Amino acid sequence: MGMIGGSLEAFIGAVHRRAAVFDGEIELVCGAFSSNPEKSKATGYALYLPDERVYGSFEEMILKEKELPEGERMDFVSIVTPNHMHFPPAKLALENGFHVVCDKPMTLNLAEARELAQIVKETGKLFCLTHNYTGYPMVKEAREMVRSGKLGKLRKVVVEYPQGWLSKLEEATSYKQAIWRTDPAQSGAAGCMGDIGTHAENLAEYITGLKITELCADLTIFVEGRKLDDDGNVLLRFEDGVKGVLHASQIANGEENALNIRIYGELGGLEWRQMEPNTLIYKTQEGQRVFRPAVGELSAAAKAHIRVPSGHPEGFFEAFANLYRNFAVTLRSVMEGKEPDPIYADFPSAEDGIRGLAFIETVLQSNLSNEKWTKFVE
Amino acid sequence: MGMIGGSLEAFIGAVHRRAAVFDGEIELVCGAFSSNPEKSKATGYALYLPDERVYGSFEEMILKEKELPEGERMDFVSIVTPNHMHFPPAKLALENGFHVVCDKPMTLNLAEARELAQIVKETGKLFCLTHNYTGYPMVKEAREMVRSGKLGKLRKVVVEYPQGWLSKLEEATSYKQAIWRTDPAQSGAAGCMGDIGTHAENLAEYITGLKITELCADLTIFVEGRKLDDDGNVLLRFEDGVKGVLHASQIANGEENALNIRIYGELGGLEWRQMEPNTLIYKTQEGQRVFRPAVGELSAAAKAHIRVPSGHPEGFFEAFANLYRNFAVTLRSVMEGKEPDPIYADFPSAEDGIRGLAFIETVLQSNLSNEKWTKFVE
Amino acid sequence: MGMIGGSLEAFIGAVHRRAAVFDGEIELVCGAFSSNPEKSKATGYALYLPDERVYGSFEEMILKEKELPEGERMDFVSIVTPNHMHFPPAKLALENGFHVVCDKPMTLNLAEARELAQIVKETGKLFCLTHNYTGYPMVKEAREMVRSGKLGKLRKVVVEYPQGWLSKLEEATSYKQAIWRTDPAQSGAAGCMGDIGTHAENLAEYITGLKITELCADLTIFVEGRKLDDDGNVLLRFEDGVKGVLHASQIANGEENALNIRIYGELGGLEWRQMEPNTLIYKTQEGQRVFRPAVGELSAAAKAHIRVPSGHPEGFFEAFANLYRNFAVTLRSVMEGKEPDPIYADFPSAEDGIRGLAFIETVLQSNLSNEKWTKFVE
Amino acid sequence: MGMIGGSLEAFIGAVHRRAAVFDGEIELVCGAFSSNPEKSKATGYALYLPDERVYGSFEEMILKEKELPEGERMDFVSIVTPNHMHFPPAKLALENGFHVVCDKPMTLNLAEARELAQIVKETGKLFCLTHNYTGYPMVKEAREMVRSGKLGKLRKVVVEYPQGWLSKLEEATSYKQAIWRTDPAQSGAAGCMGDIGTHAENLAEYITGLKITELCADLTIFVEGRKLDDDGNVLLRFEDGVKGVLHASQIANGEENALNIRIYGELGGLEWRQMEPNTLIYKTQEGQRVFRPAVGELSAAAKAHIRVPSGHPEGFFEAFANLYRNFAVTLRSVMEGKEPDPIYADFPSAEDGIRGLAFIETVLQSNLSNEKWTKFVE
Repeated sequence: MGMIGGSLEAFIGAVHRRAAVFDGEIELVCGAFSSNPEKSKATGYALYLPDERVYGSFEEMILKEKELPEGERMDFVSIVTPNHMHFPPAKLALENGFHVVCDKPMTLNLAEARELAQIVKETGKLFCLTHNYTGYPMVKEAREMVRSGKLGKLRKVVVEYPQGWLSKLEEATSYKQAIWRTDPAQSGAAGCMGDIGTHAENLAEYITGLKITELCADLTIFVEGRKLDDDGNVLLRFEDGVKGVLHASQIANGEENALNIRIYGELGGLEWRQMEPNTLIYKTQEGQRVFRPAVGELSAAAKAHIRVPSGHPEGFFEAFANLYRNFAVTLRSVMEGKEPDPIYADFPSAEDGIRGLAFIETVLQSNLSNEKWTKFVE
Repeated sequence: MGMIGGSLEAFIGAVHRRAAVFDGEIELVCGAFSSNPEKSKATGYALYLPDERVYGSFEEMILKEKELPEGERMDFVSIVTPNHMHFPPAKLALENGFHVVCDKPMTLNLAEARELAQIVKETGKLFCLTHNYTGYPMVKEAREMVRSGKLGKLRKVVVEYPQGWLSKLEEATSYKQAIWRTDPAQSGAAGCMGDIGTHAENLAEYITGLKITELCADLTIFVEGRKLDDDGNVLLRFEDGVKGVLHASQIANGEENALNIRIYGELGGLEWRQMEPNTLIYKTQEGQRVFRPAVGELSAAAKAHIRVPSGHPEGFFEAFANLYRNFAVTLRSVMEGKEPDPIYADFPSAEDGIRGLAFIETVLQSNLSNEKWTKFVE
Repeated sequence: MGMIGGSLEAFIGAVHRRAAVFDGEIELVCGAFSSNPEKSKATGYALYLPDERVYGSFEEMILKEKELPEGERMDFVSIVTPNHMHFPPAKLALENGFHVVCDKPMTLNLAEARELAQIVKETGKLFCLTHNYTGYPMVKEAREMVRSGKLGKLRKVVVEYPQGWLSKLEEATSYKQAIWRTDPAQSGAAGCMGDIGTHAENLAEYITGLKITELCADLTIFVEGRKLDDDGNVLLRFEDGVKGVLHASQIANGEENALNIRIYGELGGLEWRQMEPNTLIYKTQEGQRVFRPAVGELSAAAKAHIRVPSGHPEGFFEAFANLYRNFAVTLRSVMEGKEPDPIYADFPSAEDGIRGLAFIETVLQSNLSNEKWTKFVE
Repeated sequence: MGMIGGSLEAFIGAVHRRAAVFDGEIELVCGAFSSNPEKSKATGYALYLPDERVYGSFEEMILKEKELPEGERMDFVSIVTPNHMHFPPAKLALENGFHVVCDKPMTLNLAEARELAQIVKETGKLFCLTHNYTGYPMVKEAREMVRSGKLGKLRKVVVEYPQGWLSKLEEATSYKQAIWRTDPAQSGAAGCMGDIGTHAENLAEYITGLKITELCADLTIFVEGRKLDDDGNVLLRFEDGVKGVLHASQIANGEENALNIRIYGELGGLEWRQMEPNTLIYKTQEGQRVFRPAVGELSAAAKAHIRVPSGHPEGFFEAFANLYRNFAVTLRSVMEGKEPDPIYADFPSAEDGIRGLAFIETVLQSNLSNEKWTKFVE
């Protein structure tokens, strides 16, 4: 793996690195960690990389690695830059024969997303978008419960993503995370909705297997001086007459990272909360059952994403690592010419990336509209 | 107290009776428990009432009680009939000099609500609408926290009321509760939104002290054969730029009676859940504090509604009893010509009743509209 | 019902009164609310009792009521005085033909308890000891789960009762509850162990149906100046090789009234917590199921002690009221010469009272002993 | 790092490997993964180790690595074998100049533990015992709260470690974990008490900073055919008059890995539960405060053990990794001749190892004794 972005002070770079190597399937062999070559070098040095594999730019990395003999050169790139710098390296990597793991949202806007998905298709390379919350074993179990009909025909989805860390104008301080995430040039046309609303959208579509078809959004900039939405409430309509609510916020004061989802069907409901990710509650009129990793019977999909006996909490890193592990296992199958195992060929795709950008665009469009319902942009 | 409605098989009648007598302030002295005189008699007998104080109709009760000497006759009526039978006895009681406690929603429709509020005003009698969830001490504390500025300027409200008991066509069985609540003639033009959506609306306005100014609603009848909405999702806009989400459901399979509210402001947030009513969580970026009855410093308003030392759970009946107790204490002040204590003169009013019916009408209107925002009917 | 003790400032008197009348089965007709006749009168007046039914002493009440015609005179007394004043009125009432409800612990010491149980037996009167925590519906369900074999042969019991309200020398202030509960003359030879340890002991024996056979106790007075234990840790051995731990504290700083129990058997375990009394967790290696009132299938015993639809929390008063209701229903059967229904003939007895006092004596004896195990006093 | 034990099928080997490399401070360079050379080779191969660094025995590894040039040879060994194989490789490694990380309990018995601690002392090498639960940031915070006096003088400790996975005779199946952990030859003289009771003992002494001085234990073998205790209840006495209860079980049916601790002092209490490790509750009579990673003000000690923003759950692996990271940072200081930073020089030591074995021996001795109190073996 070669990493693009993720210099030492970047939070998400270290997350990707830990997640990538967690299961011993992937090795970090090179990187272009910053557009500032000195920063890139410093990061590479701290990571014990050989000097010649630390590059000053992603272009340099991709082109030089390509010249290395197979087996030595990186197999794929991991792109962990701010949103506006996803498309260029992804395109270049794919077109030069490298597979790609990319942070979300996939691109800065929907047009780029579509173009990138097309390139993925044409190059035939693997592409993984790190909607990491789908990596939790209990999310897998939830999806399997829906698939296997335990909820019956679905009726209603409530998905929430409240955070409170932008309750003040943090971007006016030197807080890097706040600065780029609230800057349209780096983050895109949406703030909260792009940063975390897309996780909520992805989670809902992933578990239900249903697509949002239209929505009605009310976005707000609550903090004076901010340029992008820091809160949004959305009514959802899915395929098959399923209704829903999605709300996300970065001004929900006192909330940490409280992504959660509830899904109700004719036969039962379920509830999952990211901050207690090892608990999945299945509810019917007959009572509640609690599903937990490594306890009782679980789906093969869930079991493949658990590493420990019951009661040993796995969390954010392990879920993230599940994406990398799945990508690596699938990549190995592909490289060995084998049919990928569907249990592991389970990671967000470029198609999910399009859905995410389309969600952002639809939400923004709806927010400006006086019409109640805005069709989900295809 | 004289009761109208509430024969033996009615759930809510027994709730009102227990709540009324709970604190030793109120005595049940007569009743017209059913429009069926035999049922009324049977109920009165079971309640150890003297035969002559059990009436065959509310008209009879009101007119005969009026003839009794002061001190012996009932002081007020409690109306616990289905919604379509709220207005007639309330009007008659008020106009014959009796104070009124009335179950919610106040009337079958907004026009009636306005007329009734006018009668209350003109007669000068006390009127209490039993939005019982405002009777919990931690709800009082929440309101005081908002009032005292602990949350700063408010920004967002999320209020939910999921139930699952109507996930099937229960009204096709002999389930009485289901039958009248899903029948437009008895329940009014809304189902779920009237039955429980109004509780959510009332709770949000009560705690925040803010009025909803416009909304966008998406109601659904999920269960085939049902005549009224069994689910609804609503975007809210309050005064002062506060945004919100309200959703209620009776097809949220596996949910019990999960009313809950979260409120976020510039300085902090709070969360309260009816099913664990003795816990109020106050959240800021500095951490969470848990407020509980009889623990540490609480507002005078909260303390006046707690009967036990800490850790002895009070629940539904005690909250309901708080409304009756407040009504009784205020009534006594009024009867004694004293200024009511504002701590106790705290129970939902006819104005709240108008808000509830206006909410129902606005939600129904919005549901049919293609406009995004529907102004809250005044 | 005639009440002995329970003047206006006494916490537990008001609890008993609310609990007694809650279900409309019992009426308070007279009282000797204090050994101070003026206090007694004032309390009776506040409770709207006729003057002639408010007595200056329990002796006066029992003897005068006895002279009243049947149907008018009280049927039973409720004794809510401090512990040292349980035995004399209970004895007098029983011997004069009145049934008795009595707060716990039954008497000041074991000798009295045995004598009282003998009097109950000889007079054939009904006797109810208000170990109120056994009145919760989910406690009933727990007992039925044990009885029906859902846990298999039992192995281990952990029962805890942590409170924190005596973390300081509250008895040095004017805090009445603290004063009498820490005074050997009024409370008996044990403090914490008598006041709340006995509730824990009773709960464990009630649910498991097993008796403690020997124990090993370590009691402590943590607060300087206090005369009775304010904390105790006890190893338990039950019949049938079941082991256990019981600990209770009134110096568990920050704890409210956190009685809880966990029971493990060959096939499963269960957990119940008084502060969230409507949740019972059943655990097996296959996962957890959550049992809640009015949700799904419950035992007849549990269902008979629930008054509301699911999700409407019942609490401390309702559990307490279940004892009175059961006593009243059973009393009526007895008075009507019918066989009591076993579902309702379910309230703590004089035998439970002996167990409680024997527990106190065994614990005190063990605390002073260097022997590991002290046989449970019979 | 060179690993001893931890072949592919061993659960704990993979945990140690992930934990060791998690923060990029440590590299696995060699291993003797099994006493079966073929198994060892297979494991090394799967881990992409060069063939010549995979050894057939720990003796071979230690002696051959010693011959390698500095910088190339391993710096320390990690011992993850069953308990009876801790002492021999630890001794050999230390005496040949290698630092040691060792799984717990440190040795098979107390005599070995003392000898090993002596060797550590004499060789001056670093030694880390992986009582991993002390690696959680909220455990660090708890210890700092005690140290800084937020609880005042301590009074009571309740520490529990219930598991249910040995509720049946699992060792009669082919379940490897069950087989060695219930075999006295591999596990030592205690079962449950050695395996998990020592974690509870260590956690209590770590957070409180107090030593257990005497105890009273009741151990049981509940499952017929088992050779070692599968359950134990213990009364504790600590220094300074602090009292406590410790109970651990592997037959607490339906429990997962429910280690938890509550500590009460004159000013407040605290509660921490391993299965929700990111929540620490601080309780006083004034109310509860919830402490969470990366929320509000935390101690420097806690902050140094957190890698993510608030609400991104870290768990078992991350806590384990904190031990390795601390060991690595301290080792680097030592190798560079610098004074170790006390924040990082915080990992369980050989002294903790002695405490653990002494706990086992004391508990076993007490279990056989008729004396109430058994002095903690020094």
